[in-house]
Amino acid sequence: MTVHTAVVSTSHGEHDSTDSLLERPRRLRDQSRWDATADVVIIGGGAAGASAAIEARRLGADVLILERASACGGSTALSGGILYFGGGTEIQTACGFSDSADEMYKYVLAASGPNPDATKVQLYCERSLEHFAWCKDQGLRFNPRFYAKKTTEPPGDDGLLYSGNENVWPFNEVAVPAPRGHKPATMGSAGGVIMQALFGQATKHGVRFRYDTRAIGLVVDDAGRVAGVIARESGAECAVRARRGVILCAGGFVMNRKMLAEHAPKLLHVNLQIGNPGDDGAGILLGLSAGGYAIGMGEGFVSVPFYPPSKLVHGVLVNAQGQRFVNEDAYHGRSGDFILRQTGGVAYLIVDEPHFARPIAGMQLKAAGETIEILERELALPDGSLTHTLRFYNEHARLGKDPLFHKASSYLKPLEQGPFAALDLSADRAIVPGFTMGGLDTLPTGEVLGPDRKVVRGLYAAGRNSCGLPRSAAGYSSGMSIGCATFFGRLAGISAARADALGA
Amino acid sequence: MTVHTAVVSTSHGEHDSTDSLLERPRRLRDQSRWDATADVVIIGGGAAGASAAIEARRLGADVLILERASACGGSTALSGGILYFGGGTEIQTACGFSDSADEMYKYVLAASGPNPDATKVQLYCERSLEHFAWCKDQGLRFNPRFYAKKTTEPPGDDGLLYSGNENVWPFNEVAVPAPRGHKPATMGSAGGVIMQALFGQATKHGVRFRYDTRAIGLVVDDAGRVAGVIARESGAECAVRARRGVILCAGGFVMNRKMLAEHAPKLLHVNLQIGNPGDDGAGILLGLSAGGYAIGMGEGFVSVPFYPPSKLVHGVLVNAQGQRFVNEDAYHGRSGDFILRQTGGVAYLIVDEPHFARPIAGMQLKAAGETIEILERELALPDGSLTHTLRFYNEHARLGKDPLFHKASSYLKPLEQGPFAALDLSADRAIVPGFTMGGLDTLPTGEVLGPDRKVVRGLYAAGRNSCGLPRSAAGYSSGMSIGCATFFGRLAGISAARADALGA
Repeated sequence: MTVHTAVVSTSHGEHDSTDSLLERPRRLRDQSRWDATADVVIIGGGAAGASAAIEARRLGADVLILERASACGGSTALSGGILYFGGGTEIQTACGFSDSADEMYKYVLAASGPNPDATKVQLYCERSLEHFAWCKDQGLRFNPRFYAKKTTEPPGDDGLLYSGNENVWPFNEVAVPAPRGHKPATMGSAGGVIMQALFGQATKHGVRFRYDTRAIGLVVDDAGRVAGVIARESGAECAVRARRGVILCAGGFVMNRKMLAEHAPKLLHVNLQIGNPGDDGAGILLGLSAGGYAIGMGEGFVSVPFYPPSKLVHGVLVNAQGQRFVNEDAYHGRSGDFILRQTGGVAYLIVDEPHFARPIAGMQLKAAGETIEILERELALPDGSLTHTLRFYNEHARLGKDPLFHKASSYLKPLEQGPFAALDLSADRAIVPGFTMGGLDTLPTGEVLGPDRKVVRGLYAAGRNSCGLPRSAAGYSSGMSIGCATFFGRLAGISAARADALGA
Repeated sequence: MTVHTAVVSTSHGEHDSTDSLLERPRRLRDQSRWDATADVVIIGGGAAGASAAIEARRLGADVLILERASACGGSTALSGGILYFGGGTEIQTACGFSDSADEMYKYVLAASGPNPDATKVQLYCERSLEHFAWCKDQGLRFNPRFYAKKTTEPPGDDGLLYSGNENVWPFNEVAVPAPRGHKPATMGSAGGVIMQALFGQATKHGVRFRYDTRAIGLVVDDAGRVAGVIARESGAECAVRARRGVILCAGGFVMNRKMLAEHAPKLLHVNLQIGNPGDDGAGILLGLSAGGYAIGMGEGFVSVPFYPPSKLVHGVLVNAQGQRFVNEDAYHGRSGDFILRQTGGVAYLIVDEPHFARPIAGMQLKAAGETIEILERELALPDGSLTHTLRFYNEHARLGKDPLFHKASSYLKPLEQGPFAALDLSADRAIVPGFTMGGLDTLPTGEVLGPDRKVVRGLYAAGRNSCGLPRSAAGYSSGMSIGCATFFGRLAGISAARADALGA
């Protein structure tokens, strides 16, 4: 078992090959030869697939994971590795925060955007402590230490942080804020730790794996029940029979530019795909081919990170009209989403000398000037536009107020000591990380639904092959994706293992 | 033949019944009984269906239209009836405008948004004069008179108008502006005239119709080719055999709140559905059930109309921060889309006494005041925010300039004579008309594509069952929908009529 842990990203990961390889479902009765058989066949060895495998195996099912890469781990292994837990975990309590399933529910529901799946949200929140315990059972450890600074990823091995918009406007009016980002104990990125743990368990319990095995089609019986998978393995065809069910856990589609254009055009701005090369939508397309129905395909995480360091949060974000448009202390996924809504996607972060710092995210210094007037000219902003914005901002910041966007008072300091600088956060010049959130419509059990809202028998999906918990760029918190993938991956594994076995 | 012409709209048209009635495809060999047979079966008798029928019949095909309502006409019959033509029609020329297929192409391509179908756009523009002639052949007449005012729908019987963003920023920098909205000669709405003409032709040429016939499923042969339709007619099942092909022309999904939430959440703000009760997405879902693939589902037309009268375009649109955010002379679909991007969807139109007029669209007067300062307080906008916006706007308007959004100088007059008024254009309080633009992925021939980008044999789609020409709220022009439905409806009819007939 190998887990890849290097962060990989390609600037324009296009995969035309997925479309041309993809096959329509074959009929079971036409399929005479099988290269492998299992009760539960899982496509994709990331967090969702591993969690599904562990639970299905625990229930006695024979489980086979087909992984397209030469190693398991998926996009979770490449990620920061934050898990979204709440409701009063021992880590929250040890760090002095109180939380409840109800407050967590209120927050996650609001954060899910205009089309939340209230049942999934409720289940996720009510069972968060149980899921936390399950993750610990798999070997994950969390240090009871709170990381208090504004960051995209905590640099040390602290176990708890605010990983979203819980404590910023307008979400702090919706639910009592509590930090819910839990990071397994390791320095820096913890995604590899999570996948090492999950695959250690899966292997120990006897889950089988086939690597370099790329699913290209499904097999269905005459009643439409999914009964197997057609894959390519070293260039040859490999037919895999699934006695109880097939679980799609093959990730999102951020690497597929064509699918982004078709479904999530705002993610065309993404130039740092958060994912692995296999995130080309193949799992979703396979699900569609067997009668599944995809929802929420337009949404995705899209950030234009400008912190850390936290100090930069004291700056103001302005658009091409020199206007502010969001509270700068919002989670970077939210401020990024708002940047893309601006005319031309133009945005600058304006800071003065005391609040300047070299940004880790690597955006460019667009202009600098001794006064705001000079900076305004350097940026070619309309005369008087930026100067008004700063005068208005400073006037209220002195009183600890932000009447426009209710930025927290701790980040409200007048920006008045030149020289001033403008960092370029325009969508076409900054680093824009992102990933997709849409996927197959599923029941909380992982069962895939068709356009008629009825179950496609024998087919399950989890992780970003399904549309799950996070459904809004403007409301995303770090940890919701891996939290969703592991929790609903488990449920899908349980459902598939419990399904009636197909006849001969 | 009856055409319904009353404008119908329900404020929350929910159709749960569509989902529960929808059937998965049946197998051809299991279908022993047929109630009707035709070469080409068309689901939906709107502009796309009628155009498809006329062309298929012209090629000798036996054509049957299944219409769910008791009368044909679809949403086109209820509409303003504008058709988007260009490239130098005789009406454009007579009104003194020059245009070319190239300039039209540049505009339509840019207006289509981030995922245009360049092949469809090119075909549509190159053949616009031919399509104009075809429409005249069907009996449509256009008066060679230009309507110059800013309107959502021309009140008289003038034949030509700017029906989009052709002559406003930023589109006037992309292509040489020309008006391309062509309205058939009638006072006011012309949708009924269009459908009377098309159905007159269809009937004359021997197209057959079945009314009150609701398609609920498709029939496919063992190779997956679509070979028939299962419908409900007076509560009974009706099986219709299609020898050459089935064309889906059943409209968009603006009446289906569940589908809006799943695919186009921004259209959840729509409270005046532009459509007919049958626009519940059934045609799209039928296409998906047979292996089709839907794209562009997140986009739709969404307007917050505030003109006519044109005079109101002199006003300024501001958000909850008192900031302007769009050129007010943009097409109302574009300004509407920008309103929905603002925090909380809050927007007010600010006018002074000389530029006040009673709006036709019926939005409410939110506040009034002798001075801008008073108005600002009445609107509970942050102190100094609106006053700055107006001061800045007026200063430049006096010079005929709008450095923020490049509004045309003809609408730039300082707003300085009290009393001032604020009309409420907030998404949750104004009238928000809208319709969907997403649909099945098709070739220009109307052939439906699957997720594997290969044709689903025997299945065609046009109008808003397909994703066609208009693909962006921010770039929409009136006339693109009916233009697209009639033009690509024709192509779909031709393709289906020319397809090989199925064996017994």
